[in-house]
Amino acid sequence: MALIVQKYGGTSVGDVDRIANVARRVARTKAAGNDVVVVVSAMSGETNRLIGLARAIDPDHDPRELDMLVSTGEQVTIALLAMALHKIGVPARSYTGGQVHIRTDNAFTKARIVDIDGAKIRKDLAEGRVVVVAGFQGVDAEGNITTLGRGGSDTTGVALAAALKADECQIYTDVDGVYTTDPRVVPQARRLDSITYEEMLELASLGAKVLQIRSVEFASKYNVPLRVLSSFDEGQGTLIKSEDASTMEQPLIAGVAFNRDEAKLTIMGVPDRPGIAFQILGPVADKNIEVDMIVQNVGQDGSTDFTFTVHRNDYKKALAVLQELKAKLGAREVAGDDKIVKVSVVGVGMRSHAGVASKMFKALSDEGVNIRMISTSEIKISVVVDEKYLELAVRALHTAFGLDAPPPQQQ
Amino acid sequence: MALIVQKYGGTSVGDVDRIANVARRVARTKAAGNDVVVVVSAMSGETNRLIGLARAIDPDHDPRELDMLVSTGEQVTIALLAMALHKIGVPARSYTGGQVHIRTDNAFTKARIVDIDGAKIRKDLAEGRVVVVAGFQGVDAEGNITTLGRGGSDTTGVALAAALKADECQIYTDVDGVYTTDPRVVPQARRLDSITYEEMLELASLGAKVLQIRSVEFASKYNVPLRVLSSFDEGQGTLIKSEDASTMEQPLIAGVAFNRDEAKLTIMGVPDRPGIAFQILGPVADKNIEVDMIVQNVGQDGSTDFTFTVHRNDYKKALAVLQELKAKLGAREVAGDDKIVKVSVVGVGMRSHAGVASKMFKALSDEGVNIRMISTSEIKISVVVDEKYLELAVRALHTAFGLDAPPPQQQ
Repeated sequence: MALIVQKYGGTSVGDVDRIANVARRVARTKAAGNDVVVVVSAMSGETNRLIGLARAIDPDHDPRELDMLVSTGEQVTIALLAMALHKIGVPARSYTGGQVHIRTDNAFTKARIVDIDGAKIRKDLAEGRVVVVAGFQGVDAEGNITTLGRGGSDTTGVALAAALKADECQIYTDVDGVYTTDPRVVPQARRLDSITYEEMLELASLGAKVLQIRSVEFASKYNVPLRVLSSFDEGQGTLIKSEDASTMEQPLIAGVAFNRDEAKLTIMGVPDRPGIAFQILGPVADKNIEVDMIVQNVGQDGSTDFTFTVHRNDYKKALAVLQELKAKLGAREVAGDDKIVKVSVVGVGMRSHAGVASKMFKALSDEGVNIRMISTSEIKISVVVDEKYLELAVRALHTAFGLDAPPPQQQ
Repeated sequence: MALIVQKYGGTSVGDVDRIANVARRVARTKAAGNDVVVVVSAMSGETNRLIGLARAIDPDHDPRELDMLVSTGEQVTIALLAMALHKIGVPARSYTGGQVHIRTDNAFTKARIVDIDGAKIRKDLAEGRVVVVAGFQGVDAEGNITTLGRGGSDTTGVALAAALKADECQIYTDVDGVYTTDPRVVPQARRLDSITYEEMLELASLGAKVLQIRSVEFASKYNVPLRVLSSFDEGQGTLIKSEDASTMEQPLIAGVAFNRDEAKLTIMGVPDRPGIAFQILGPVADKNIEVDMIVQNVGQDGSTDFTFTVHRNDYKKALAVLQELKAKLGAREVAGDDKIVKVSVVGVGMRSHAGVASKMFKALSDEGVNIRMISTSEIKISVVVDEKYLELAVRALHTAFGLDAPPPQQQ
């Protein structure tokens, strides 16, 4: 008998029929002899409806009151799911985050979990009940309702799994697992049976938006096996777990990620002196612009070119910052390009294998894709290329690293 | 400086503009130098929407889970009202019933308040904040969310006023006070400046649905002055308070109430022996039919006629019960009439004045209204008349007891 935490997102509980469907799935897991804790999100659309009401009252609303407001979304779902479980004969009880002592700090709208007291849940499980917990929410030390920020229900699931020492945390969503790349770009993309936390972190941050990155960090920290599955289909999904010996036998590269919404800025001919990076990036950060890749080339004349990427939405704002800095720093020129994308290969295998970078560059070169920027980490190599090459680059890399699914067999 | 508890019903907070309107009214009360605690209901329609979801999942839903579900309605309103107060510069904080320790028993969907700990609210008031509390809800000893049943927000308001020893509990609604009778029937009906708890209880139970009867009982028990006002107009409303010396100077009769939805049943010629009333009303009660007026006439031959009224919806069910009883009790006949109404005059003054009944009967007789049943209590006399006489009877009594407003003065 195992203890399973299942988390169902907003689409999976989007209407009463889907809630009934979730109840049947929970019932099957329980009937198979498991203890089950279920974490649910608000019904899809509900959180946005509530935020719309808040905006209509005051666009500059108080964050404490926003959490009071939006936390009702999950509370509705837990009650309805508990009813749906009762209806099919499964004893169940719903709890808000506060009721099961999900203690957070008091950073309203983006709180972090400090502690969970699992005693109440364990008691219900021991008495044969399914426990249904509102995701995304907790209470601070003074009993104020807090929320973990959007998508925080995944984090609730993982945190509960860690606190209860669950055997597995299952994240039900509308995709059936983690893929080697986006199947819309590469039809030969394959679902991965398993992947390491680190690979998932790199893939998630690069845009494969299956899981909230925070929940993967959490799972990794507490070594909670995390499984991503579809709530609409059957199937094994993808298990996300820590690296083990068998990982070494696996392919070099777990997947090819990409990000369409990038822009690149360069400030050229700045004096190459200590502190120059901060002098450039400080003012950018002050405007709340997040910087992704950073590359600095030293020139011949004691000056340097400094290039970085930002989200495309921040391109104009970042450009304005650099224009202002140009005179101040005595730079020669400011340039930018918002028609670029980032393509990355990710895999823990590359740590112990040389030649991944050169294989990547060759594959791109063979297709005539010009590389505009390169950035590497221990388990990831990212390149910036012109937007028009995105699909070509992703497909070339997917094939080059042996990720393509075998073609369907002819009968 | 006074401490005022204000309660706003669902219509008063029915949309974002109305919530802003409530915020302005609260701000004015605060600016006048008062401490203010606000209790709000769910936005109109919201509770029904939530109950609709529950029914769609399971018509026979669990009451604990229903309370978990519907309590979100008020939680949405408190957050929005606190935001609306912040927006106009009034410091405010919202709390669920549980957060301000509104302790109830565990009778889900119809819980009763056991205790309120006002410490948290007092602290906020002392720090200059308006406190916004979710009506209709509390928590039981184990921390489960409970609700007080529909309309329970009035009770929350009065209970908070009692716990905080507030100077007044103001119930804002869509009418501007308690009237001597329904102005739709009698255009000369007048708003009462004040009325006693007992009179209000009799008027409320007779169908003047301004206030939840439980909240009036509560206010009476703890001697909380209760004021009914309109949240849309200005005006003094009606103050509901305990009887004092000045009451004696007031008119004999506070108001004329009526109830359209009555039906009358008679079982004739039952043996007049001890226990016969129970033998008749026992089976009626077993069918969950509530009986209102009861009259028994002893006949000449040791048999008796037994008449009672029920809500019109229960008429057919009650008739079937009597038909069944007829043979069993050896009764002669069963008769009924579902085209009757009840008209009552109510006033604490009648306790110390003879002749109210005869004045009532004369006024009806003068208009040719035939009285079908009579029932009296200490401060109320009710008669049953044919439905067609309703308006005539109410107007005649309203005039006879001097309740008509003076005609508008000619310029």
